[in-house]
Parts: sequence; structure tokens; C-alpha cells
Amino acid sequence: MKFYDCQTAPSPRRVRMFIAEKGLDIPSVEVNLREREHLQAPFLAVNPFATVPVLALDDGTILRSTAGCRAYLESAFPSPPLLGGDAVGKGVVADLVWRIEADAIAPVAECLRNTARGMKDRALTGVENYEQLPQLAERGRRRAERFFPVLERLLGERPFLAGERISAADIDAFVFVEFARWVKIEVPGECTGVRRWHEAMSARPSAGR
Amino acid sequence: MKFYDCQTAPSPRRVRMFIAEKGLDIPSVEVNLREREHLQAPFLAVNPFATVPVLALDDGTILRSTAGCRAYLESAFPSPPLLGGDAVGKGVVADLVWRIEADAIAPVAECLRNTARGMKDRALTGVENYEQLPQLAERGRRRAERFFPVLERLLGERPFLAGERISAADIDAFVFVEFARWVKIEVPGECTGVRRWHEAMSARPSAGR
Repeated sequence: MKFYDCQTAPSPRRVRMFIAEKGLDIPSVEVNLREREHLQAPFLAVNPFATVPVLALDDGTILRSTAGCRAYLESAFPSPPLLGGDAVGKGVVADLVWRIEADAIAPVAECLRNTARGMKDRALTGVENYEQLPQLAERGRRRAERFFPVLERLLGERPFLAGERISAADIDAFVFVEFARWVKIEVPGECTGVRRWHEAMSARPSAGR
Repeated sequence: MKFYDCQTAPSPRRVRMFIAEKGLDIPSVEVNLREREHLQAPFLAVNPFATVPVLALDDGTILRSTAGCRAYLESAFPSPPLLGGDAVGKGVVADLVWRIEADAIAPVAECLRNTARGMKDRALTGVENYEQLPQLAERGRRRAERFFPVLERLLGERPFLAGERISAADIDAFVFVEFARWVKIEVPGECTGVRRWHEAMSARPSAGR
């Protein structure tokens, strides 16, 4: 098995932390996105969609999304469960993961990719170029900021988003908080639950990976 | 258990077909999106995110996304598996489902929601209003059109996207093809594999649901 990673990007981090929380040690290959290595022939042969994370399995199967990599890992290495324990738990975690991707991580990506000078014509991942849309960046910022009170409500008094145990939802929300800093968005002071949870997440060994 | 559905919307259809392919009979409630029932207090009490599908479980848990509803149903009613059989299969289906949502269904939604007159200021789902961005509609159209050759390649010579058996990926790709018609995008003639597969999908009882 081989994990195609990039230390500077949020999506591979969602899988990297997942691997760390599973206690797995998977050989990894660093793909230098800043040098546009993902748009060059050797990597495109692995993933024509030109994105990381990628997980190349021993049977030749290649998984080319965060969701795909984690669904495989959860089933192949079930302990500890990170996508939910029983049926209800699996539903709850999938719900949270979807929400965080759609309403938190994607908006930050919209804000960043539609403004960063180094991402001119790279408003979306992939091999096709798409021009930056300033209005989309602004909308992304508004949406990302609005997610903090939602996260506060989702968290409530629980130690983790899905309850007593860490799940992929916590990993993703943590990656969102860290990613939001790239566009100068910080956890608002009034989100005391999020701040408490973020501090606990930051202290986990997986957060440094 | 109760399923909050809407016969005229693509996302609940992804769950409705999933339920039908599982052979389940779950009591459903029709939420009239055109009458903006999802933005009124009774439904917001069920789902503050103001979207369908929603699955209300007997233990009181409420799942508020396609992903959440299906993860629960797959675990509670494992046969036939629609999110993959073994670990590799689960990875492959999750990969496809993610890809189809991100690169096919979302672009059609962008195209529709940023142009339809009845969706003024409703460029995104949810309780917040967001203005329509014509450039995003145009980008969504380009992306949706570009997905057909990708779908053709993903399908290859297989009867279904993940191989010999139907999966959630086929449901989602089918919903994409049907949804694309709303913005006058049809399967290109040269995508003969997609046309063959779409014909077979259309003939399944679940397609009429």
C-alpha cells in the first residue's frame, strides 16, 4: 500500500490524521503541489484527476478521494472505528463529515483558490483550468465564518462531535479550523466549546502529522 | 423510521432509489420545496439546515444528508450491499460517489440554482440567502458537460460503475444524467457506454421511484 500525501494541503491531511488515529504506518510519497508535480505525467498516470490524497492498494486498485481512502481503511482496519460504531453511529459520522466538507472546508477552499495569486486560473483542482471568481471567494469567506456557530451547536457539551469518541468528523473539523487560518479566519471568541475541543484536538499526536 | 422526501429534487432521489434498491418500504413525508415548506418552522424543527433528504430514526436520531441516510441504511440493512462489498469495494464505491457528487451533481446544481428565476437569492440550499452568480452557472455547465467522457471512462466495459453489481455510484450517476436535463444537457452521442448503462438503469423499478 502506498499513500500519496502533501504536507501543505488540507485534503491529504484528512487522510493522514485518519491513518495516524488508526495507529497505522503506511509508506507515503510526498507530492509537491507547489511545484505542480500533480499536473505532471508521472503523477497523472496514478491519478488523472490530479489530486491528493491517493491510496494505491496492493491489488492495484487506486483510490483517488478522501472518502474513498477512508472507506477502504475503515473496513480493512476496523479498530478503532473512525466512521462510526453501530449503524446509527455510522449515519451520524457520515452526516457530520458531509456537512463539514460542504459547509466548512469547501467554502475555505473557495475563498483561498479564488483569491491567491499563485492560484490564478486554478480556482478548482483537477487538470482543467478555471478562472478565479472574486464573488465566489467572498461568498466562501462568509460561509466559512458562519460555520463556527454551527460547529458550536453540533459539538454541544460533548467531548467529540459524534459523542464520547473521536471520529473522522473531528479530524475534518480540525482540518477546517487550521485551513481557515490560511485566509485569516480564526475561531470566534464566543465559540467556547469549539475552542475547548480545538485545544484537545491540537494536543493529539495525529494533529502533528 | 420516517423519510422526508421531495419528488421533484435530485438529492432525495439518491436516497429514494437507494431505499428501493434495498427493497425497503419506509414511510415517507413529502416536503414541497416549491412551496418553500423546507423554510418554514415545522420542517426547520426537523432539519435546521432546511434540506431534504432527512431520515428520522426510531431512537430519535435525525440524519440530514444523503451520505448520512445511506451510511445508516447500509449498516442497518446490509443486503444487498450498495456501498461496496469488501474493503476494496467500499473504497471504490465511496470514491465514485464522491467524484459524481463533486464533479457532476454539484456542477448541475450550480448551473440551475444560479440561473433559475424561481431561485433568485437561493443560489445555495439552506436558510441563508446567497445571490446568483452567472459566472458560476456558466462554469457549472462546462463542468457538467465535461463529466460525460469521464463517466464513459469510469464505466468502461462494465455493466455497472463498480463492476458486476449495482451500487450507490450508479444511482448517483443516474440522478446526475436526469438532473442535467433540467439545464438542457443530454448524454453526448459518442458516450455509447453511458447510453447503454443509462438505458439499463432507466428500466429498473427503482428509477421510477
